[in-house]
Amino acid sequence: MSVSLPWTGGPARIAEPGEGVGLDELLLASRNHAMPAEAMREDLTPPGLHYVLTHYDIPHVDAASWRLRVEGCVDHPLDLDLEALQARPSRTVRVTLECAGNGRAGLTPRPVSQPWLTGAVGTAEWTGVPLADLLRDASPTPQAVDVVFTGADHGFERGIEQDYERGLSLADASADDVVLAYQMNGAPLPVQHGFPVRLVVPGWYGMAHVKWLRRIRLLDRAFDGYQNAVGYRLRQEPDEPGAPVTRIEPRALLVPPGDPEFLTRERILRPGPVTLTGRAWSGWGRVDRVEVSTDDGLTWSDADLGPHEHRWAWRRFTATWTAEPGRHVLRARAHDSTGRVQPMTPRWNQGGFTNNADQPLVVHVPQ
Amino acid sequence: MSVSLPWTGGPARIAEPGEGVGLDELLLASRNHAMPAEAMREDLTPPGLHYVLTHYDIPHVDAASWRLRVEGCVDHPLDLDLEALQARPSRTVRVTLECAGNGRAGLTPRPVSQPWLTGAVGTAEWTGVPLADLLRDASPTPQAVDVVFTGADHGFERGIEQDYERGLSLADASADDVVLAYQMNGAPLPVQHGFPVRLVVPGWYGMAHVKWLRRIRLLDRAFDGYQNAVGYRLRQEPDEPGAPVTRIEPRALLVPPGDPEFLTRERILRPGPVTLTGRAWSGWGRVDRVEVSTDDGLTWSDADLGPHEHRWAWRRFTATWTAEPGRHVLRARAHDSTGRVQPMTPRWNQGGFTNNADQPLVVHVPQ
Repeated sequence: MSVSLPWTGGPARIAEPGEGVGLDELLLASRNHAMPAEAMREDLTPPGLHYVLTHYDIPHVDAASWRLRVEGCVDHPLDLDLEALQARPSRTVRVTLECAGNGRAGLTPRPVSQPWLTGAVGTAEWTGVPLADLLRDASPTPQAVDVVFTGADHGFERGIEQDYERGLSLADASADDVVLAYQMNGAPLPVQHGFPVRLVVPGWYGMAHVKWLRRIRLLDRAFDGYQNAVGYRLRQEPDEPGAPVTRIEPRALLVPPGDPEFLTRERILRPGPVTLTGRAWSGWGRVDRVEVSTDDGLTWSDADLGPHEHRWAWRRFTATWTAEPGRHVLRARAHDSTGRVQPMTPRWNQGGFTNNADQPLVVHVPQ
Repeated sequence: MSVSLPWTGGPARIAEPGEGVGLDELLLASRNHAMPAEAMREDLTPPGLHYVLTHYDIPHVDAASWRLRVEGCVDHPLDLDLEALQARPSRTVRVTLECAGNGRAGLTPRPVSQPWLTGAVGTAEWTGVPLADLLRDASPTPQAVDVVFTGADHGFERGIEQDYERGLSLADASADDVVLAYQMNGAPLPVQHGFPVRLVVPGWYGMAHVKWLRRIRLLDRAFDGYQNAVGYRLRQEPDEPGAPVTRIEPRALLVPPGDPEFLTRERILRPGPVTLTGRAWSGWGRVDRVEVSTDDGLTWSDADLGPHEHRWAWRRFTATWTAEPGRHVLRARAHDSTGRVQPMTPRWNQGGFTNNADQPLVVHVPQ
């Protein structure tokens, strides 16, 4: 269907200097949701606390009539129902999943879209069928280059009608631990997380983890659909092609200590010794260092790192601090084994993606 | 702990004309969440889609050591663990629960707080112990007037440190269908909905449904704690005492037809006949009429009402419409058996409570 509407086409809008969040952004912020920071107390994030971003509407998918087709450049196309999928050998992977737009609302100027602060993240155990096994059974032809995943969610973006669809290279799709998940934390997928089946691509930002999966198509060329070629690109200028958004940049977040003030979410903490805790992750490599600052980044100390038992999941860190009366600004920043480190100032791009600048946390310690 | 901080005390701030939503409000909008409108397709709203508002942090409550005390003006104080509570006769009630601040962001000028549009609602089945039975066992003294419910959530609001606490009159607390719920939709309460036990007061706005309940205290006087005497009041002027916020005003919402545009959430719908559906509710009485307008309120038609099987839950309605090419603004408004009806323009108050003005829904029908 071709539509001609005021908002058809064109690049994303950039907010004017000082422009507050508009009602359109607020509606997105309200229907999608972030993880409350205190949820990082737990290793796993339950549904309702785990972040959710839905491009269009959450579709209703009937499990009894659901089918998954694997087709295109394959010698043996597959057509599976849910029972057949679940009868296959399964794997459970613990994955920290983050939205590529996390941090967008902290950019100046602000790209107008889902206005995430820093909470668009969560960690869950996803159980499903290794995609590599399924692809091997389908037997890709030598021409196969990209694998396209189609969801049942449907809508319009910059005037283009589409099913939500993302492509991965055949190599990325065949990587270890990529699964077609039908369970989250040991229970059937909640509807908002892609019931009955979603793709999970450990290490990659959320846009790759196609929900409500219904088709896998192998192409003999690079996929040039909207979400790969237009949507998730890193651009300085609106008309350049830009680089693709791929893996999760390192980030550390503190579990806010003390008690919150309702409106500002600033913290009030009794004076004395306190153990600061938090979580850090990276989709590029292992988090091997986290620094904590209690003086707004003037000085930093290395935090103690918890075990790194799960390759794709956040790592716990702790740091001790003696809170003296006054106002303090806490910060934390993660380093990973590839040499990536969180910057203190945001790296800007048109779409507001991958802003992993470290975030200040204001703490008031009364006398 | 006494704190002296910039934001201590004073009434809620009112936004300047044209002032966008600030980062403080955005953080609240991000950690709390609304129900996506398409969730109204279903009778019951699952966790993660049901709205959540938390004043402070979501507390961690250990079920094994949890206790509920019933004390104060009673002849037989009670002290129950979870097993003892769950061994008592239970009841399941289906309840539409709405935040008193739902609609706040639609007010002009806008009170600065959690900036809800219209999605702070959800319907669930709550299973638990009838409070009236428990109170009868505790045997209130003749002096008992109010019943105060204390949660485990703790923080600061306008400079006042507090556990979240709300009072009800003994009569309201003893009403039919008020339960101490330990299940939501047949499963243990999710942590964000008050695990292990919350109060459910059918018909009342969410502020009465104290989560993470840990104490019930009967007083020989009216409760004058923050959430009753200061927080949830209907005021035209900041310094007047105001009237208490109590029961849910009538509201009807449409399930958005067609497909959404990602950013604006405006709808695109193919021309032709369509069945519009929605849900309507009121905490004062039975919804007995819903009107739908497809011309921005110029003309209205009565919708067909579904059965009213659950006294406290939303009622389904349907209306047929032949969508002609063009831009249309849909509206719906509910009437209840007490004569209450949704207004077309918001009723303003300082706290931004109980704004049940009907909401326009923009639909584009291409040629």
